[in-house]
Amino acid sequence: MSISKRLLIVGGTHGNELTGVYLIKKFAEFPNLIQRSTFEILTLLANPQAMAAGKRYQDKDLNRCFSPEDLANPHLTNYEEIRAKQISQDIQQKEVDFIIDLHSSTSNMGLTLILDGKHPFLLNLAAYLTSINPLVRILQHNPSSSKMPYLMNLCELGLAIEVGPVAQGVLNAEMFQQTEALILTIFDYLEAYNSGKIPQSFHTLTVYQSMKTIDYPRNEQGEIQAMIHPQLQNQDYAPLRLGSPMFLTFKGEEICYQGEELVFPVFINEAAYYEKNIAMSLTQKIVFDF
Amino acid sequence: MSISKRLLIVGGTHGNELTGVYLIKKFAEFPNLIQRSTFEILTLLANPQAMAAGKRYQDKDLNRCFSPEDLANPHLTNYEEIRAKQISQDIQQKEVDFIIDLHSSTSNMGLTLILDGKHPFLLNLAAYLTSINPLVRILQHNPSSSKMPYLMNLCELGLAIEVGPVAQGVLNAEMFQQTEALILTIFDYLEAYNSGKIPQSFHTLTVYQSMKTIDYPRNEQGEIQAMIHPQLQNQDYAPLRLGSPMFLTFKGEEICYQGEELVFPVFINEAAYYEKNIAMSLTQKIVFDF
Repeated sequence: MSISKRLLIVGGTHGNELTGVYLIKKFAEFPNLIQRSTFEILTLLANPQAMAAGKRYQDKDLNRCFSPEDLANPHLTNYEEIRAKQISQDIQQKEVDFIIDLHSSTSNMGLTLILDGKHPFLLNLAAYLTSINPLVRILQHNPSSSKMPYLMNLCELGLAIEVGPVAQGVLNAEMFQQTEALILTIFDYLEAYNSGKIPQSFHTLTVYQSMKTIDYPRNEQGEIQAMIHPQLQNQDYAPLRLGSPMFLTFKGEEICYQGEELVFPVFINEAAYYEKNIAMSLTQKIVFDF
Repeated sequence: MSISKRLLIVGGTHGNELTGVYLIKKFAEFPNLIQRSTFEILTLLANPQAMAAGKRYQDKDLNRCFSPEDLANPHLTNYEEIRAKQISQDIQQKEVDFIIDLHSSTSNMGLTLILDGKHPFLLNLAAYLTSINPLVRILQHNPSSSKMPYLMNLCELGLAIEVGPVAQGVLNAEMFQQTEALILTIFDYLEAYNSGKIPQSFHTLTVYQSMKTIDYPRNEQGEIQAMIHPQLQNQDYAPLRLGSPMFLTFKGEEICYQGEELVFPVFINEAAYYEKNIAMSLTQKIVFDF
């Protein structure tokens, strides 16, 4: 029985994340790459104005505009708010049941799958992908918080792919190729599942679960007073222990991690998160059974 | 005899190049770092609106607004054009005779000194810096072309420091420290020179001299059809020979360098140069006597 009949793959939700933008353009130009017999694949460039301007967004981060409340609020009318409503309606009308949203990061995220849902199909897919590619890691939001207002959450079967490190506005061929291979593997897995040919069923999955975010040290005017410590730069998904350096102030003083709990920081020094007051996100590494 | 009495060090000429922005903020906060006995050091954040917006520029690339013609043209009145005139007047009024303009790049530029002038003091300084730090490279514009409309060219003694790779909008501590050390070395050298204590005089200098720029392969609509080849990514200043891969098309075809002449590409895959139709700049490596 088909788990999915119509999948939407999205790039350019953030206009300056070029890996996704150019993968979608490639899939649109070479549709045979995304033809499968058991399900249909649609493509979407989500934020054309931001893409044209080479920016993350025009008026508001599009990937924070998809909460059910905001989508139903007629007073939200800036460019991204309207765009979110259009995309949401389009996905309903076309009966899309699976979304893959492509992102990139200036952090060393490798090939991260972000899952908000807990559908067994997604968990099995995630376990399969981590089993065949050590670069793949699974990031989940804090399960006690409500769903994030992300595009991918318009479907129960939704995931985001977050690749890095790559600068905003840069197309990196190696990352492009790795991401394309990952996407095609997902399509092939879905085709096999729809055809009743799933090779293996998994029952455990290692995930990195978000606990909280850490801001840069700032002064009273909100100005940054310290940088990510050189020893922490690019160490996404590595363990951070009590006493490990996190920041280096402009005076040259180290600020160290003071928590007792072992944590695994991700999104370390992501360019787009300075304005969101996020220097990194701390996660727990969890192996859970399903 | 003093070669310089008043030096201006500038950051934020491009608002999203944070290494320079935060170095200037640090120098302003800790003025003892930039106090020397034989010359005065002033600091400037050149493009506050672009910095606030997290962008390279507001209306026009500020570092292309400093040609004598444009500075004298009363019809040029957008934000950066006016800002360029203000900066130029300020530099004249304050009798600044030396400019260091701080930039960063998504390309693997290491610690590049960009020189447009040929003043013997600059050449000696450049030779000294390359002799003590292998990361330092000297980039010069094509000597047959006219001076570039750069901020640094407001003084005969002007240079830009271009560090990378670092993403736009990201503060990288290691690059920050390397750049700060380079700047302080320049200040110390200038102090020694002004005091008649130059340790060594050089007579040859290795420079990379710009020949021409190469654009991405594009279709009729101007859309990029190929990426920097993975083998060329981050290979700034490495020799590129006949037949070496330069681009990889989305179809997977390699586009190779067809020139007979050995060249050394720089600014490979610089984010800000996509809109300038520059995928890289080809240079010649020249050892010249002075």
